[in-house]
Amino acid sequence: MNSPLRTLHLGVGAIGAEVVRLVAADPRFRIVGAVDVDPAKAGRDLAEIAGLEGPLGVTVTADLDAALRESGAQVVVHSAGSRLEREAAPLLRCLRAGAHVLSTCEELSFPWARHPDLAQELDREARARGRRVLGTGVNPGLVMDLLPSLLALACQRVDAVRVRRVVDLSQRRPQLQRKMGAGLSLAEFEAEVTSGSLGHVGLVESALMLADALGWEMDELKEEMTPVLAPRHIRAGPLRIAPGQVAGVRQVVTGTVGGRPLLELELVMVLDASEPHDAIEIQGVPPVRAYFPGGIHGDRATAALVKHLLPTLAYAPGPVGLVTMRDLPLTPRRGRDEEEGTPR
Amino acid sequence: MNSPLRTLHLGVGAIGAEVVRLVAADPRFRIVGAVDVDPAKAGRDLAEIAGLEGPLGVTVTADLDAALRESGAQVVVHSAGSRLEREAAPLLRCLRAGAHVLSTCEELSFPWARHPDLAQELDREARARGRRVLGTGVNPGLVMDLLPSLLALACQRVDAVRVRRVVDLSQRRPQLQRKMGAGLSLAEFEAEVTSGSLGHVGLVESALMLADALGWEMDELKEEMTPVLAPRHIRAGPLRIAPGQVAGVRQVVTGTVGGRPLLELELVMVLDASEPHDAIEIQGVPPVRAYFPGGIHGDRATAALVKHLLPTLAYAPGPVGLVTMRDLPLTPRRGRDEEEGTPR
Repeated sequence: MNSPLRTLHLGVGAIGAEVVRLVAADPRFRIVGAVDVDPAKAGRDLAEIAGLEGPLGVTVTADLDAALRESGAQVVVHSAGSRLEREAAPLLRCLRAGAHVLSTCEELSFPWARHPDLAQELDREARARGRRVLGTGVNPGLVMDLLPSLLALACQRVDAVRVRRVVDLSQRRPQLQRKMGAGLSLAEFEAEVTSGSLGHVGLVESALMLADALGWEMDELKEEMTPVLAPRHIRAGPLRIAPGQVAGVRQVVTGTVGGRPLLELELVMVLDASEPHDAIEIQGVPPVRAYFPGGIHGDRATAALVKHLLPTLAYAPGPVGLVTMRDLPLTPRRGRDEEEGTPR
Repeated sequence: MNSPLRTLHLGVGAIGAEVVRLVAADPRFRIVGAVDVDPAKAGRDLAEIAGLEGPLGVTVTADLDAALRESGAQVVVHSAGSRLEREAAPLLRCLRAGAHVLSTCEELSFPWARHPDLAQELDREARARGRRVLGTGVNPGLVMDLLPSLLALACQRVDAVRVRRVVDLSQRRPQLQRKMGAGLSLAEFEAEVTSGSLGHVGLVESALMLADALGWEMDELKEEMTPVLAPRHIRAGPLRIAPGQVAGVRQVVTGTVGGRPLLELELVMVLDASEPHDAIEIQGVPPVRAYFPGGIHGDRATAALVKHLLPTLAYAPGPVGLVTMRDLPLTPRRGRDEEEGTPR
């Protein structure tokens, strides 16, 4: 039995706080630090921010370097932005302080193609210290990339892969509803698409990760974002959507191989979605189809993944450096930890 | 780019031959040996046995040791019996000759609990030489163990797991139909269940592998086998089944944790199954359900898995020794091979 793994939580927003609640309740872990850029959180006990009763004895600070230096954290749980260009600097500081990094940053899930320089820098810093840095989550990370990659192992030949995820935004955070365009006019939607602030980040990373698993060289990878308009009046919490206003977004990434669109990832995030689900379809020999009624819950399952992967990141045998969800044994046999997994 | 991986095929029955066809068609591999206990196969070219056109230049032999010695095989593909007690001896010989072993032996998929001595011996021999031995397949190996283990990572809390696999035997080999009892009388069925010759091997191993992934200590694990009777006349190839005769088997493994049946794996293999499918249901927070219409084809997907995992077994970073489907990164990022994966 290892002594409790010491975690530092960098970013305690909605998902970060949910991770804190899970980690705080698990004796395998000990929370030793918490950092958030929000000045309203600084100086308060982490329990208060995370909605837990009783103090955790961990004060949230805005000073990452001091927290790294003073906490002795073995793993940093990073849950802040989606864009690697903005997040790389703090991630590098965590690695240089000798911590592993487990992050929900979407672009970190498979950064090699779009951010090769940052990927190499993160990889180099992590390797130099025998540490790992991993971007994880349900999407990207599990549903549209790891799972189809694994299911494709059951195919002698893969002709095409199509993954579809339909999320009912009515059941999700207002912040997410807003980010997917709910309540906007068509003109506002177009403007936000143009400015790059609307929609889900990570669909392209999923496509790149999946294509790499399949050994496919894509000659084109294009992303389309179209508004889904409300067919009727919709109420979702404080939101009131009139018919013809935007109720959500349909986002499609298509990968072309040898001139043919063989890879398609479709994400529909909309208020009042009639049949939320995840669906994976692999055309091939044999064909493989998987349907997840209701879909795998984005926030809750992402928080669960982060918690479960903390010991894996620190102890599982395998490569160090910048890794993806495909590079580690995610559920290694119990007992192997102690045999072989010296914390790296 | 590694030079082609040299494979030796031990057992070229239905699945073994299908693997040969896949491996022979893939330039990443070079078949250097073939062994089968069937004297009718000895002395013939492997292509003939596997139903391929043109000779492969590999003569099937019954002499495993000579084949190991002369072939220089790096990986042995083992596809013979389901029972580890019978298969362990040849597997050990392969390991001692310095080869990795990739096997469809069902009891090898998770042998630690039921065959601890053999498991330890295989592990020791493999580790001593830096080799790996892995039992793989669709079931056990993927559908009822690895996949639910991975999906459970999306759950903050797992209350119960139920996996159901319904296979339409009408679409499968006569040998398999017969092994599942199709065509027997009720009395014959009971006699074969008692003698241990009827039914699927590996359901218990799947349950053990899954329970280990969940961190569940089971206080009981019981297996039940009940006949499924033909409701009407059924024709399947040469088989004629009268109403009331056995059309297949329903096999259920139930794992009890803290006095409650929290783990249930159900396998129905029957002629004219009305809705073949695989279904994984995880009760928990959040719940996760997956439904595979048609189910993942047993033989075809097992052959595919074996082929895909050959390079993984030989080159992927991670532990050596006796490993399970949970211990290796099954779809490691391309490019990492060359960086880190020296053939072990």
